[in-house]
Amino acid sequence: MTPQSPPVETVEMHPQRWGDPDAASDLPASALGLVELAFGRHETPAVLGAAPPPVALADDLLDGLRAVMGAEHVLTDDATRALRTRGKSTPDLLRARAGDLTDAPDAVVRPGGHDDVVALLAWASEHRVAVVPFGGGTCVTGGLAARRDGFAGLVNLDLVRMKRLLALDEVSMTATLEPGLRGPEVEALLGAHGLTLGHFPQSYEHASVGGFAATRSSGQSSAGYGRFDAMVVGLTAATPTGTLELGSAPASAAGPDLRQLLLGSEGAFGVLTSVTVRVRRAPEETTYEGWRWPSFAAGSDAMRALAQEGLLPTVLRLSDEDETALNLADPSSIGASDDPGCLMVVGHEGTPAQVAARRAAVSERLTALGGTPLGPEPGQRWVEGRFHAPYLRDALLDHGVLVETMETATFWSQRERLHAEVRAALRATLGDGALVLCHVSHVYETGCSLYFTVAAPQGEDPLARWAAAKAAASDAILAAGATITHHHAVGTDHLPWFAREVGDVGVRVLRAVKAELDPAGILNPGVLVP
Amino acid sequence: MTPQSPPVETVEMHPQRWGDPDAASDLPASALGLVELAFGRHETPAVLGAAPPPVALADDLLDGLRAVMGAEHVLTDDATRALRTRGKSTPDLLRARAGDLTDAPDAVVRPGGHDDVVALLAWASEHRVAVVPFGGGTCVTGGLAARRDGFAGLVNLDLVRMKRLLALDEVSMTATLEPGLRGPEVEALLGAHGLTLGHFPQSYEHASVGGFAATRSSGQSSAGYGRFDAMVVGLTAATPTGTLELGSAPASAAGPDLRQLLLGSEGAFGVLTSVTVRVRRAPEETTYEGWRWPSFAAGSDAMRALAQEGLLPTVLRLSDEDETALNLADPSSIGASDDPGCLMVVGHEGTPAQVAARRAAVSERLTALGGTPLGPEPGQRWVEGRFHAPYLRDALLDHGVLVETMETATFWSQRERLHAEVRAALRATLGDGALVLCHVSHVYETGCSLYFTVAAPQGEDPLARWAAAKAAASDAILAAGATITHHHAVGTDHLPWFAREVGDVGVRVLRAVKAELDPAGILNPGVLVP
Repeated sequence: MTPQSPPVETVEMHPQRWGDPDAASDLPASALGLVELAFGRHETPAVLGAAPPPVALADDLLDGLRAVMGAEHVLTDDATRALRTRGKSTPDLLRARAGDLTDAPDAVVRPGGHDDVVALLAWASEHRVAVVPFGGGTCVTGGLAARRDGFAGLVNLDLVRMKRLLALDEVSMTATLEPGLRGPEVEALLGAHGLTLGHFPQSYEHASVGGFAATRSSGQSSAGYGRFDAMVVGLTAATPTGTLELGSAPASAAGPDLRQLLLGSEGAFGVLTSVTVRVRRAPEETTYEGWRWPSFAAGSDAMRALAQEGLLPTVLRLSDEDETALNLADPSSIGASDDPGCLMVVGHEGTPAQVAARRAAVSERLTALGGTPLGPEPGQRWVEGRFHAPYLRDALLDHGVLVETMETATFWSQRERLHAEVRAALRATLGDGALVLCHVSHVYETGCSLYFTVAAPQGEDPLARWAAAKAAASDAILAAGATITHHHAVGTDHLPWFAREVGDVGVRVLRAVKAELDPAGILNPGVLVP
Repeated sequence: MTPQSPPVETVEMHPQRWGDPDAASDLPASALGLVELAFGRHETPAVLGAAPPPVALADDLLDGLRAVMGAEHVLTDDATRALRTRGKSTPDLLRARAGDLTDAPDAVVRPGGHDDVVALLAWASEHRVAVVPFGGGTCVTGGLAARRDGFAGLVNLDLVRMKRLLALDEVSMTATLEPGLRGPEVEALLGAHGLTLGHFPQSYEHASVGGFAATRSSGQSSAGYGRFDAMVVGLTAATPTGTLELGSAPASAAGPDLRQLLLGSEGAFGVLTSVTVRVRRAPEETTYEGWRWPSFAAGSDAMRALAQEGLLPTVLRLSDEDETALNLADPSSIGASDDPGCLMVVGHEGTPAQVAARRAAVSERLTALGGTPLGPEPGQRWVEGRFHAPYLRDALLDHGVLVETMETATFWSQRERLHAEVRAALRATLGDGALVLCHVSHVYETGCSLYFTVAAPQGEDPLARWAAAKAAASDAILAAGATITHHHAVGTDHLPWFAREVGDVGVRVLRAVKAELDPAGILNPGVLVP
């Protein structure tokens, strides 16, 4: 096939906020009232008009870079550099809001394809220029804030021009995608063929295929469509010392699965220049509904039963008591219920026959396990708002609230302990007034992920305050034997805990692979590899 | 829990044949008649009484080894060394039958646990003694025939004493197994708790957990239970430079999945000393049945439909026309049917309700796609004979027939081409009289595996004859873009094609990991790493 490009251009995100600048909105008055009640009234507006530091890359290097990439694909203006500075974690936003753009790249380069990436990496290795691969810029773990010390400069490798559907095999149901494609662009390209990828993380509207692969992203429909890494059957990676092309079959016993070494490699081993993914027929019918559980434990046990009995729906999520209470609260009903229970969202997608059969089986089982159906309204509300939470974070940051999320995963037998100990660690550092909400966002036969949302007053030094809370929670995660991240990757923020999680031998393996593929160490220095 | 040991001791395999020596049998007279008709009558009995070469490890090293491992766990007698010489490929058997035991180890050592393995690897690294990890000895790709040149000797690390169920988590549905446990021992240990692993490769009766993991084994119930690598949630590996403990959650975004670097590592990076696997409730009901398809293409398309529509049964296999004709033939009916079609075996396992629901849905779909139900008899026949084929191979080897299997996997759109080109390559080298049978043994949404069985007269030099045929077929596999092995691993036999499949950069990565974990290169030298 002729490579196909997506129909529309993606909107650039605001340099100090999440998402489409036109979609920003303040908190509704009722929510603002709640915030004031809980944390007091503090206006903390962002500093406007800050500029990144001057370009530090020497003129002769810039000239060389333009010769390699084409002058029109090397951008050094302040606005472009500001837009490619760090990601979108709360610490990233706090720094950007304070006018701190010190991590800005010296230049943003935009390769047009695999060969351009190869040429750039060769040039950067020769001249010892650090390179940060950049897809959607939605990273929340410091993965876009590479070290520049010891390097002649720092270049942002923006994949925005690499947005093609390169191949489609409707017999095998696979699609080969370039890494710069954002979530909605993938769905538009596949949708034209009646297909879907089915990958809908909260960052969906802005995150890219390359980022999904490089960070082992997981979407809100993972119960039905699987994690992104489970969708990948092949990939091409440009490294400073050569190209890797992997994936000659859906599964193989030809040695270790080297695809799994590039998935989750966060741009530190190479740049993914194409990813071949399994695709599915676009669902003809979708239905999302709410179920009420008397407790988080009862709802979790029901999720476990579905997973272990092979009865998973397409979407399956469960909020704990506190998250349910907050989400269900509309101001007029606060205090009306002492016992909101726990809300589960259950979604089914497929042909009408598939949806009917699976919904009947799942509903029967959930009822037997003690769940109460709440009908489609809570499910519909979830679907409509599911990409909106990061906008709400910006509004809360405007009003003096420190708000951030973190996530982990564990085996079922450790879920309760993990939930309790992370909550305790966050409250111990942020104060008993801190709001700590949690939901189970992804389920497996053997375990699940826990996704925490935290809100507290920003205080004098919100960066230090969050760093302390995050460290305490991360220690609690490792003490419980869980993973430091289920779907947000390592970046720079998780490095110390990641090193403990994989141990000394694991760290040495990563360093050996890094040294072999990137001997000059130019790729995302300081990210992933401890 | 207290570690649990399996109830019975496993039978040692015959040094020149597959399986339990007491289970060997000649061909039935009718089959012998068929063989004579096809290939003529040639008796090729095995040479009896051959002995391995003398122990080449110096006495002081042997003394040192005994000091490290305990003298009673270091065996150097001829019978024990003969039983640990190579695996069970047809070339392995041809050599053993000819009395060639030149690859025998100097000593067989039997560690009792992880710490013993660590101590052995340290000793072997210090003294430059090659170490071959040995589980069930069922390898068919030369993975147990390590190079000894450049080493002070060659030691077989026999895992026969490491056979415990170390931990069982019935909430998370995981079990931690030592690597020496054989298939039936795992099922006995788990069965006592009402559980099953569900891993039933043809080698099931003799192969080990460590081997399943180190070679990415896949069982006959993979449609329902998944490949072995998909069952693994955690592992411990002893390497010459330290211990790796991996698997803190069912899934993680904490960097590359290093578990996937040890799975398929064939003892070249480290010795797996425990593997934590997902387990399932033992099925209350099992049913296996036959379906007839007018052609291999029609049956394959039906398998693809089931896989892509989420309708997979527990067992799903499809023989091509030639394999069906041979398998269905009983001598009285030869020639009775010119058009046997293609036999599919469909198996369902689970609770009675699960089996009934899934069987109804699958049967409806298969009927709609053009399949004809043949009832339970062909399914039952398959179940009863499914571990027996390797015994038949020995009988054929006795009667002058060269018989061997090989397997690969590809995406659905390439299945037909791969089938045709591998058949053509085998016939071009072995002659038009060669029998080439094929079945689809494992299915995925995006593709499937093809498993070939080949029979031809042995001729003057059967080893050279098979080497030429295997090389031609392997070239055809790579030319078709498929993988050199779906579930038999790389060993030494697949090395040249494996190197082409993963490319120069892939080879360099493997060498870098090997150099980091095993700097003295003592682990399975010549295996896996090109």
